[in-house]
Amino acid sequence: MATANQRPVVGIDLGGTNMQIGVVDAGGKILGRSKKKTRAEEGAASVIQRIFDGITEACDEAQVPARALLAVGIGAPGAIDPATGVVLEAPNLRWNQVPLARTLAKHVGRPVYVDNDVRSAIYGEHQLGAGRGCSELMGVWIGTGIGGGLILRNELYHGFTNTAGEVGHMTLFPHMPPGSTSIENNCSRTSIVARIITLIRTNHKSIVPKLADNDLTDVKARVVAMAFERKDRVTVDVVEDAAHNLGIGIANMVTALGLQRVVLGGGLTEAMGERLVSLVRRSVHAHAFPSVAKRVEVVKTELEADAGLLGAASLARKYVGRRTPRVVRES
Amino acid sequence: MATANQRPVVGIDLGGTNMQIGVVDAGGKILGRSKKKTRAEEGAASVIQRIFDGITEACDEAQVPARALLAVGIGAPGAIDPATGVVLEAPNLRWNQVPLARTLAKHVGRPVYVDNDVRSAIYGEHQLGAGRGCSELMGVWIGTGIGGGLILRNELYHGFTNTAGEVGHMTLFPHMPPGSTSIENNCSRTSIVARIITLIRTNHKSIVPKLADNDLTDVKARVVAMAFERKDRVTVDVVEDAAHNLGIGIANMVTALGLQRVVLGGGLTEAMGERLVSLVRRSVHAHAFPSVAKRVEVVKTELEADAGLLGAASLARKYVGRRTPRVVRES
Repeated sequence: MATANQRPVVGIDLGGTNMQIGVVDAGGKILGRSKKKTRAEEGAASVIQRIFDGITEACDEAQVPARALLAVGIGAPGAIDPATGVVLEAPNLRWNQVPLARTLAKHVGRPVYVDNDVRSAIYGEHQLGAGRGCSELMGVWIGTGIGGGLILRNELYHGFTNTAGEVGHMTLFPHMPPGSTSIENNCSRTSIVARIITLIRTNHKSIVPKLADNDLTDVKARVVAMAFERKDRVTVDVVEDAAHNLGIGIANMVTALGLQRVVLGGGLTEAMGERLVSLVRRSVHAHAFPSVAKRVEVVKTELEADAGLLGAASLARKYVGRRTPRVVRES
Repeated sequence: MATANQRPVVGIDLGGTNMQIGVVDAGGKILGRSKKKTRAEEGAASVIQRIFDGITEACDEAQVPARALLAVGIGAPGAIDPATGVVLEAPNLRWNQVPLARTLAKHVGRPVYVDNDVRSAIYGEHQLGAGRGCSELMGVWIGTGIGGGLILRNELYHGFTNTAGEVGHMTLFPHMPPGSTSIENNCSRTSIVARIITLIRTNHKSIVPKLADNDLTDVKARVVAMAFERKDRVTVDVVEDAAHNLGIGIANMVTALGLQRVVLGGGLTEAMGERLVSLVRRSVHAHAFPSVAKRVEVVKTELEADAGLLGAASLARKYVGRRTPRVVRES
């Protein structure tokens, strides 16, 4: 019989479209998996039932009975209160004040820990990926939006308002009109695609429409990556500018916190890889305070699409039977 | 006989021009003081001798023999290694790699702790002033430059490179020419005065030359405060713009860290008081992420000119006999 802290945990990356579920051993190895549609439109009770079904499937594959689990960890998109496991607000799930931890714990019979999805992913990188051995770390996830998280003194940092790491909302262009002043407004995949489309509509030549099968309503990260790789002028210009600007925002955090390492992840980073990371790295090194710039490392996610699942598993393992991070309630 | 942790400590605010020295009891009360010229031009050995003389004088006034001190704490301007007490680089003192803690400890016969001057002041506010009871706090000191410091999870945060809190070096105007992109370049007293002088030289009317006795080479914070109070158009415009911009930079940190409170201090804050703080506060609330903005407090220093001395004393009390903050050495 394994001792308590060697028992497997379940980690879940709960997204607006899909959920990824894995049974994870004490060494961070995934023993069994399942993937399900989230189907948020069916309501919270239905989603939680599907999470429970997914846990059962992953446990079956891992040949681990659910009662043998140490705990379940979930990374959910939105504002979470980790102390109570309540999802305060998650627009992608259409959830408001959903007691996810308590409800799911009744189904599974094991303790459930819930935290923000991006913060979970970055904790995963810290424990098992590109952030290993690094006490002062920031993760920046570049996708539909820009999310982030901080590891300070080797611990996930939540801040007083439990919003720490929200680097996407930093103002970088105070002189720009409202709605285009933030890092997220300038550097997310959504913003990059919008700028590419604007240029195409003003008669700049580009292979993006062809790569996207002439459907510009939902241009994926994969398409941006392909256009960049093929040196599509419009795409290269927009991505280089966005990476430069993102690097300035990251450099500000690197300087203000004296960070050791920055991990880049998220859909656009996974699609573009080192092509994107090297552009951001150059800008961070150019803009951070010199004594910090010469030491800080800017690296790519190692765990990629499994970062969220593995991070949620690691958080569950860490917080079972311990006081969860103190968080201020909405008054 | 007082128990060890109730014994008085000495706190020292070591500036480029003056040093402030105080004997401080366990409740934060200053029992005796001395103030001396630093005279950095006479060299480090001479400055350290003057510090020792000042300690002796303050102890005499407090009627506390130096051997009864628990420890001595110093806030020094520049890059410090708190783990060794070495001043790595302090341009204002013309110091490079000066083993301040070790040298002074030999004179005094008591342990000596050294940290950065602005960080010491902010720790002072956290322990005894406007930051009391606040676990997640940033201090921003507005004077010749802009310095800062962070209290995270109730502890002074140094970061990996021991530069945490250097908010003045954040880039806020990436579109501006080099040398005018940072917060410090736009919002310090030096920058504010430079912009006022530029406007005066391009024929804008102002009472600043008269208030400064027609000497614009060294316009003090006091003069800026008087001109602002008398509604000098040029001064009001420049200060309002600087406070607005500083508020954006502070809001970025408030958002990214989920801070509870921001304390403003430094020479310009002491001279202008609530007039300056209210302008910065308004901008912080307008620019921080809404869920954080509605909670964060922006307040004025309570300890004012004694913040550095009292903070250095508190740090010495905290770190005596304990492991000092881990800091990475220059490689």
